[in-house]
Amino acid sequence: MIIKEAINEIINSVKKIQSEIDYSAAEKMVELILNSENVFVIGAGRSGLVAKAFAMRLMHLGISVYVVGETITPAIRKGDSLIAISGSGETIYVVNAAKIAKKRGSKIISITSYPNSTLGKLSDLTIVIKGRTKIDKEKDYLTRQIKGQHISMAPLGTIFEISCLVFLDGVVAELMTRMSKTEEDLRKKHNVLE
Amino acid sequence: MIIKEAINEIINSVKKIQSEIDYSAAEKMVELILNSENVFVIGAGRSGLVAKAFAMRLMHLGISVYVVGETITPAIRKGDSLIAISGSGETIYVVNAAKIAKKRGSKIISITSYPNSTLGKLSDLTIVIKGRTKIDKEKDYLTRQIKGQHISMAPLGTIFEISCLVFLDGVVAELMTRMSKTEEDLRKKHNVLE
Amino acid sequence: MIIKEAINEIINSVKKIQSEIDYSAAEKMVELILNSENVFVIGAGRSGLVAKAFAMRLMHLGISVYVVGETITPAIRKGDSLIAISGSGETIYVVNAAKIAKKRGSKIISITSYPNSTLGKLSDLTIVIKGRTKIDKEKDYLTRQIKGQHISMAPLGTIFEISCLVFLDGVVAELMTRMSKTEEDLRKKHNVLE
Amino acid sequence: MIIKEAINEIINSVKKIQSEIDYSAAEKMVELILNSENVFVIGAGRSGLVAKAFAMRLMHLGISVYVVGETITPAIRKGDSLIAISGSGETIYVVNAAKIAKKRGSKIISITSYPNSTLGKLSDLTIVIKGRTKIDKEKDYLTRQIKGQHISMAPLGTIFEISCLVFLDGVVAELMTRMSKTEEDLRKKHNVLE
Repeated sequence: MIIKEAINEIINSVKKIQSEIDYSAAEKMVELILNSENVFVIGAGRSGLVAKAFAMRLMHLGISVYVVGETITPAIRKGDSLIAISGSGETIYVVNAAKIAKKRGSKIISITSYPNSTLGKLSDLTIVIKGRTKIDKEKDYLTRQIKGQHISMAPLGTIFEISCLVFLDGVVAELMTRMSKTEEDLRKKHNVLE
Repeated sequence: MIIKEAINEIINSVKKIQSEIDYSAAEKMVELILNSENVFVIGAGRSGLVAKAFAMRLMHLGISVYVVGETITPAIRKGDSLIAISGSGETIYVVNAAKIAKKRGSKIISITSYPNSTLGKLSDLTIVIKGRTKIDKEKDYLTRQIKGQHISMAPLGTIFEISCLVFLDGVVAELMTRMSKTEEDLRKKHNVLE
Repeated sequence: MIIKEAINEIINSVKKIQSEIDYSAAEKMVELILNSENVFVIGAGRSGLVAKAFAMRLMHLGISVYVVGETITPAIRKGDSLIAISGSGETIYVVNAAKIAKKRGSKIISITSYPNSTLGKLSDLTIVIKGRTKIDKEKDYLTRQIKGQHISMAPLGTIFEISCLVFLDGVVAELMTRMSKTEEDLRKKHNVLE
Repeated sequence: MIIKEAINEIINSVKKIQSEIDYSAAEKMVELILNSENVFVIGAGRSGLVAKAFAMRLMHLGISVYVVGETITPAIRKGDSLIAISGSGETIYVVNAAKIAKKRGSKIISITSYPNSTLGKLSDLTIVIKGRTKIDKEKDYLTRQIKGQHISMAPLGTIFEISCLVFLDGVVAELMTRMSKTEEDLRKKHNVLE
């Protein structure tokens, strides 16, 4: 059955990617967040949804956080940081925001598969989360041909997006410990009006 | 030409509605906003967009404000107020949120055409913004029949929504004066990342 | 009282602006919408909210419409049109989207105060909605100095945004007539799940 | 290091949960989607973000899909289905929408940890995705006490949300196969304006 097979492929890919993360960079990210006056997050498409999922937890933790594109997001300033998620590191919407934020003196933390991308190069800190590389794509293609499959199990940025979400929930756990917050503290902040 | 005629009808309706607003209630609304720790806004459909347009200006003014349904909206608490916009005063999504907010000890400010609606009745303060009433609808219908028109120039909640937006921008002007904020102060807070 | 005064100022400004609209351009806009396979709308900040308010009515009318930045917005193609709202005509987010849409062969309809802006210049059709001009600003300033007022009654893009909304609701009325849609037809399409 | 440990815990929990999914129910979900005129998705908070991530892929596949709460979402009708995501199955916003959709003759597919919840009971099809159960919570607590940890590694609905996302991306793979869509087909639909 395809569903089950696809889920296994996704979980295995995410597991492999997580094992290759540079956790010392991740620690630096935690410190940058804790030292920011306000944290801004940005991403396009499904990466944007991952950015929002992370922002919601930062709010639960009591960190001042804003999502670029939402109603009450103010001007970013020196002392703030921007967490920018883009698999390719070339998404125009995200790159432009990062450029403006940098000019205004904010710190840029990027999460991307390509540290040498435009986004990666202008960042103060880059977390590399691998999605499928070109070589992987070819291997995939061969495997699928042999198996007689003609589709990808995890199209477009799927693996990158899920890996980001899992990684950022790991960052949340670290922040909870550092800030001595309990699950109950987070629950108290949880929106109650929906 | 229909466009021009419709625009005139809209402007005249909005003008008439504004002349019937209870400005002492509006003053109370300004005071409630200034005395709230955080202001929450809610509305469904186009009323929700009007709520967001108002929230954006409150943010520009430096007031702590959240939009129900957006990512970083925390739990509402005592000391906060909820501004709920619903023409009918019966929109389920809005009424439910107002009930929960009231139970938690927050103040409810409603903007509605129907002060005796479920929303109106549970509010601490109600601003009545008339949309078309039933009588207006009949008059409209007659006029249109005479003119041979078979459409409404301003369907559904159009007049209510635009009147709300204009009213709330009046509230913004009052808040600017009270808070001694200049246009330049607002501009400094304006999102720069898009 | 400031609220009442500000509301009057807003209504008068909107009335004046509407009297200066080029209604033959507005007719062309209606035709472009009716001849598009899909209509896309875009705007940043409060202009984005106005774009959404218009999109909602297009949906009620049964026109295939998408909001740039929302979840289910597909790739724009030849045969589609993009309605781009930007007071200055220089908002990066909006200008970039218009450039991409144009390259892909879509029609660009812009609504702006500045027809000679980057956005205006690349558009197939421009609707000019005046906000405050520089001269107006100086006059405002003088008037306010004389009156001893130090704030603007309608800060930032307020007049542009409300004028756009009113104009676009005029376009809705025209579309209703052309498509022989009644208010009841629109109501049937209205979201019922909130 | 907490980040790494938390990520491992998340991946292991997701793996375990996926092994317990009823894949025959999942197949029924795929068929319901393929037999719907329009698919609507709804969720609150992070479950809402997961719903949006799934909706985006359905759009890429060429399926007619709407997100409840977004601008261009029309009235749901007979022949449509609503996919409702709620860990507890009691989220008011989601339950209310499901009740209305059911009354209008639409099919309800729920994704929840609690099949006997209000949402589960009114659904035509329920996919059970376990989050932490009460017993798990106690075990967690004991483990953490022994380890001297006082925080949860995956607070609130984290495990449910990530498991849902992975499951739904499995559904996407199945839909791709059934509809004979390639990754390239999906890419062509991908939003290009951001």
